[in-house]
Amino acid sequence: MTAVFVVSGGTGFSGEQLLRTALAQFPAAEVAITVIAGIRRPEQLENAVAQAAAANGLIVHTLVDAQLRLTLDRLARNRGVLAVDLMGPLLAQLQVVLGREPVGRPGLYREQNREAFERTEAIEFTLAHDDGRHIENLRQADIVLVGVSRVGKTPISLYLASLGWKVANVPLVGGTPPPELFQIHRRRVVGLTIEPEQLLVHRRWRERRLKVSLSGSYSNPVKLREELEAARRVFLQGGFAVVDITNKPVEVSAREILEAVGR
Amino acid sequence: MTAVFVVSGGTGFSGEQLLRTALAQFPAAEVAITVIAGIRRPEQLENAVAQAAAANGLIVHTLVDAQLRLTLDRLARNRGVLAVDLMGPLLAQLQVVLGREPVGRPGLYREQNREAFERTEAIEFTLAHDDGRHIENLRQADIVLVGVSRVGKTPISLYLASLGWKVANVPLVGGTPPPELFQIHRRRVVGLTIEPEQLLVHRRWRERRLKVSLSGSYSNPVKLREELEAARRVFLQGGFAVVDITNKPVEVSAREILEAVGR
Repeated sequence: MTAVFVVSGGTGFSGEQLLRTALAQFPAAEVAITVIAGIRRPEQLENAVAQAAAANGLIVHTLVDAQLRLTLDRLARNRGVLAVDLMGPLLAQLQVVLGREPVGRPGLYREQNREAFERTEAIEFTLAHDDGRHIENLRQADIVLVGVSRVGKTPISLYLASLGWKVANVPLVGGTPPPELFQIHRRRVVGLTIEPEQLLVHRRWRERRLKVSLSGSYSNPVKLREELEAARRVFLQGGFAVVDITNKPVEVSAREILEAVGR
Repeated sequence: MTAVFVVSGGTGFSGEQLLRTALAQFPAAEVAITVIAGIRRPEQLENAVAQAAAANGLIVHTLVDAQLRLTLDRLARNRGVLAVDLMGPLLAQLQVVLGREPVGRPGLYREQNREAFERTEAIEFTLAHDDGRHIENLRQADIVLVGVSRVGKTPISLYLASLGWKVANVPLVGGTPPPELFQIHRRRVVGLTIEPEQLLVHRRWRERRLKVSLSGSYSNPVKLREELEAARRVFLQGGFAVVDITNKPVEVSAREILEAVGR
């Protein structure tokens, strides 16, 4: 496994993107990419170069500050670490054709495109954390939605993501809830509930779609009430806000969730 | 206005991304970016260099084929055009640390990440074409949803986008429908409808949220029926499939829409 370090004064997004494009040309290679972002001071560069030296890795950097760029090149040379400067030559040529100096302030691109970036990130996060996936990252979510199957977690999560919120959703499936739920601040967790009659309709829709009959309890009215009741006990145990989505358009449920988490 | 040309064997995405990051360092500069993608043969390079020469512009390239890279450098030098090679130095260093040759086949990164790319594109498109925005691009949509206010167009569009479909949605607001609707293939347009009672509930939710009373007809049961009836006439006129979303979870409506457009 080869280690490649992306060093950036901003987020490292452009550098990582170009690196991944280049790595696609080495299909069989196993590479571990580490992004070292937000570099503003020479000391931070020392750490980054030390890491790369220890891993016998390659540095790829997109530093926009000329001084930091020179420092990195010097440090890498001293340590015998290969460093590829992705940004320097481009900035130099742009300076020629534009006839002016770059401002050399890291993070400007992101500042100018913050909204688009945050939304994209939120959507990517939300898709990756749908239906209890990657529950180990639950702390990174802005909002965590919890509820039984077919309560509407996915569409509401996606809608919130389109507004820029990173949402994870966690299904409650029989037995004990995942312990990770209780390790994050309860204000960020919202329990979703629904009238049993509507849940029954939703589940029957689903069975019809899948053209199968799911396990007996899935759309058994009695079991279903018990399941909703068990969910309510989990919400109470965690001290989570509860939003009833019965008959509400997705936007309305989303708004109530945002109010519940206090924003 | 300075012209910069991004030349790429793939989509030009990584190059454009890095260029935009670099340009953020020249906040006052006015730059026109042209992406020349899918370059596979030397003749295409001649055209690209001729364009750049005519515009007195800069070329930034991410070619992965060593032969094309050398050709571009030679052509640019002959024409006195500045060319920045973003990919070459990186590939060369990766070759050293990985101890193997790059395959030199353009478009590999996108091939490997097609699904993620397409989803991201679909979501961006869908957000940009919500609620009748950019109706001039309607032809580019995979699916166009049409319906009255509060019928659920936005959440369903976002859900379909998360599955990779580029969706535009067009509201029907009194008077005549936008003529663009009838200029695309009717099989790609789906009319959404809803029972008047549920629409009334949705609109009252909205009024409560906005803490205002909207125009008298917005949540007037009689006007609202007339509005739904007018929408149905538009669907009939266009020969559009109709999906009734009353009481259905977003996923179910989305599935019926996909069936209606025949996929």
